[in-house]
Amino acid sequence: MAVSLWKSLLQTTKSRLFLQRGVSLYNGVHGFEEEAIKKKLQQFGGGSINLSKEDHGIRVLTLNNPKQMNAFTGTMMLELQERVTELENWKDGKGLIIHGAENTFCSGSDLNAVRAMSSSEDGMNMCMFMQSTLTRLKRLPLISVAVVQGKALGGGAEFTTACDFRLMTPGSEIRFVHKQMGLVPGWGGAARLVQIVGSGVALKLLSGALKVDPERAVHLGLAEETLPSSDETRSLEEAQAWLNQYTKAPAEVIQAVKKVVTAGRELQLEAALWAEKDIFGTVWGGPANLQALAQSTKRK
Amino acid sequence: MAVSLWKSLLQTTKSRLFLQRGVSLYNGVHGFEEEAIKKKLQQFGGGSINLSKEDHGIRVLTLNNPKQMNAFTGTMMLELQERVTELENWKDGKGLIIHGAENTFCSGSDLNAVRAMSSSEDGMNMCMFMQSTLTRLKRLPLISVAVVQGKALGGGAEFTTACDFRLMTPGSEIRFVHKQMGLVPGWGGAARLVQIVGSGVALKLLSGALKVDPERAVHLGLAEETLPSSDETRSLEEAQAWLNQYTKAPAEVIQAVKKVVTAGRELQLEAALWAEKDIFGTVWGGPANLQALAQSTKRK
Amino acid sequence: MAVSLWKSLLQTTKSRLFLQRGVSLYNGVHGFEEEAIKKKLQQFGGGSINLSKEDHGIRVLTLNNPKQMNAFTGTMMLELQERVTELENWKDGKGLIIHGAENTFCSGSDLNAVRAMSSSEDGMNMCMFMQSTLTRLKRLPLISVAVVQGKALGGGAEFTTACDFRLMTPGSEIRFVHKQMGLVPGWGGAARLVQIVGSGVALKLLSGALKVDPERAVHLGLAEETLPSSDETRSLEEAQAWLNQYTKAPAEVIQAVKKVVTAGRELQLEAALWAEKDIFGTVWGGPANLQALAQSTKRK
Repeated sequence: MAVSLWKSLLQTTKSRLFLQRGVSLYNGVHGFEEEAIKKKLQQFGGGSINLSKEDHGIRVLTLNNPKQMNAFTGTMMLELQERVTELENWKDGKGLIIHGAENTFCSGSDLNAVRAMSSSEDGMNMCMFMQSTLTRLKRLPLISVAVVQGKALGGGAEFTTACDFRLMTPGSEIRFVHKQMGLVPGWGGAARLVQIVGSGVALKLLSGALKVDPERAVHLGLAEETLPSSDETRSLEEAQAWLNQYTKAPAEVIQAVKKVVTAGRELQLEAALWAEKDIFGTVWGGPANLQALAQSTKRK
Repeated sequence: MAVSLWKSLLQTTKSRLFLQRGVSLYNGVHGFEEEAIKKKLQQFGGGSINLSKEDHGIRVLTLNNPKQMNAFTGTMMLELQERVTELENWKDGKGLIIHGAENTFCSGSDLNAVRAMSSSEDGMNMCMFMQSTLTRLKRLPLISVAVVQGKALGGGAEFTTACDFRLMTPGSEIRFVHKQMGLVPGWGGAARLVQIVGSGVALKLLSGALKVDPERAVHLGLAEETLPSSDETRSLEEAQAWLNQYTKAPAEVIQAVKKVVTAGRELQLEAALWAEKDIFGTVWGGPANLQALAQSTKRK
Repeated sequence: MAVSLWKSLLQTTKSRLFLQRGVSLYNGVHGFEEEAIKKKLQQFGGGSINLSKEDHGIRVLTLNNPKQMNAFTGTMMLELQERVTELENWKDGKGLIIHGAENTFCSGSDLNAVRAMSSSEDGMNMCMFMQSTLTRLKRLPLISVAVVQGKALGGGAEFTTACDFRLMTPGSEIRFVHKQMGLVPGWGGAARLVQIVGSGVALKLLSGALKVDPERAVHLGLAEETLPSSDETRSLEEAQAWLNQYTKAPAEVIQAVKKVVTAGRELQLEAALWAEKDIFGTVWGGPANLQALAQSTKRK
């Protein structure tokens, strides 16, 4: 009985990871009333979240509120959720580049919204809303890269951890400044940071509010590399070239690759194995596989 | 139904991590009779576990049995549990430094007690008792550092892994010598070592009983750095200065930082996110947060 | 109630890890009909899996199908399962070296079998069969090392991750080429790779089908070191010497060491602690422990 129950629990997590789309981590049981929080966020406008057209299976998401270092207003949080839904429904996606407008990444939440939502309940609602969106972003079946120009501060630093990779431009920094605001991460940035750099480094970065420049970020495993250019257009081109190394295959194959890695990261070993086998089943004998087999026969 | 059950299980683990104090990992169901094992441990006396007064939110815990390289007698195990209970109830704590008396760290268990408790049942009881205490120590909502002078051997090596960080003095060593005693770790040192350095390195350190000097420890990620001094007083001052980098904030904020990192380390992603949101709720709109917001308004 | 259920679930996983032998990860509930898949695999013959006699607690497993770069035929999959069962029942085992015949490691599956089993169902059945065997291989209570000469490609690369360690000879390579075949790993290689090198590196290796030479493998933590020789006999001797560092103790102690590390890797912290305590109980007061205690008394 315990075994079959265990399986049913794993099935639930797997379906959340790979089958469902647009499903929040939270619902009424957690005291999360999505419509009410959306109505509240709607009151704090400004800025936008823009998504480019597809180019060879890659799209670019821009955090756009440059007057406030691309801080998230309430409506930007709502727009981010819409863009993520759009990406979940993008059948041919392989890669995603995320950056901030006008040479800086993001400074977290817009303080105007923050001041108006200072109750503990409001704060937790905002966290649940952003955690859901960022978890869905990280689980997207495509390879995502944050291009960090200028500063990624507080919630902006948390946001970078919702991407698979981080590339930094010369002179840029990632800094979990929460402590200096009397806070800790709440958008899931602590949980994801522990997964990326381990709990010891995460504890130092958060409790020290340490400024992480590109060299240190690469050393700690927080970033992949420093891009050559700090110019906005050029660094986006460099990021695209970097990403191209990992997207040269049919979309169904890249998506399956991302899924097996997500399973390996989020699930315990046995559950990850079960998921890997199911994902394998989606490509085995599929068009890309049959074509490769046919070519290997010809070569003989 | 499976989902609500899953949530209830997670709730149990979360409450164990963050709400309960002084609760053992084990109880009668595990064949663990705490009072009986305490009575047994009481028979093997010698040494003490000392806790300093608070100094700027930091206290120092001393393993004190220098005639036996600070090996744990039965009464030291009992005293350690009492000191951990005291630390759990310390409202203003931010940091903890742990070291051994007279220039060495700890050589594990007192062999006199070991010889008198050589049945498998006695051994497992001792493990359950020490695992409970060391797990509560590692989960304390403060930043803990083991200052390793001289030798940390066997159970002493295990003890260092119950701290968030390890700082080593020149010439010191950490060595899991269990194999040479025909043993494996039992105080939780293997499980924690895997979390710190990964399973490959852990397997080498345990199966090779490798001597780990400071340079190697830093290379493997087992220690943070080598302190300049090997003198006892000075190295404690240096450790305090190192720790001060990470404790400059109100206690409630440092405690919340440690809690989100603990959640990220111990829980699967979704559960860690839920915990992070709850912990965020304890500081959002709290005194440190409001003061920081007020200052950022003034600066405008 | 939730707590006792939790315990029962953990008990199930623990017993799977440490008590049961020869039990598959999958059964009829997963649509896995082991006898049917065996009958199918039996049709694709060629090659063999050879196991050497014991030498000081160490045995050598050879993947032997050199005409096809030691690719796995169906009968080799069946023989591997038999050899793993043999190793599970080997009471005095301490170490295992795995290599391929004639200076290369393994190129994955035999394409003849692959072409005849191209339905999604057949593919998943083959994965379930190989995942079960490789999971049992990785959990064996002995220290296992893959000696990579020549090429470990596709399923061959996956196979290396089922060993505790990888040693590479000069000029050799590990390469997850699945993408180029329109595939992803399905023998558990993705899940295990994430555990060894982290999800970021795993995503790059899989989505880029990157060629990993010995230097890069050591840098990424995928391999331990580069052996001096590329000659088959010599490199096996070098691997044996490397392994000897970690097997100098009675078999029961080495086996217990491997078990506590496996528990630390596969289980969440509390469950790993419970397992560690049980494993400790198997050696505490045992012959190797009593002998070491007697010697430490004499030395006094």
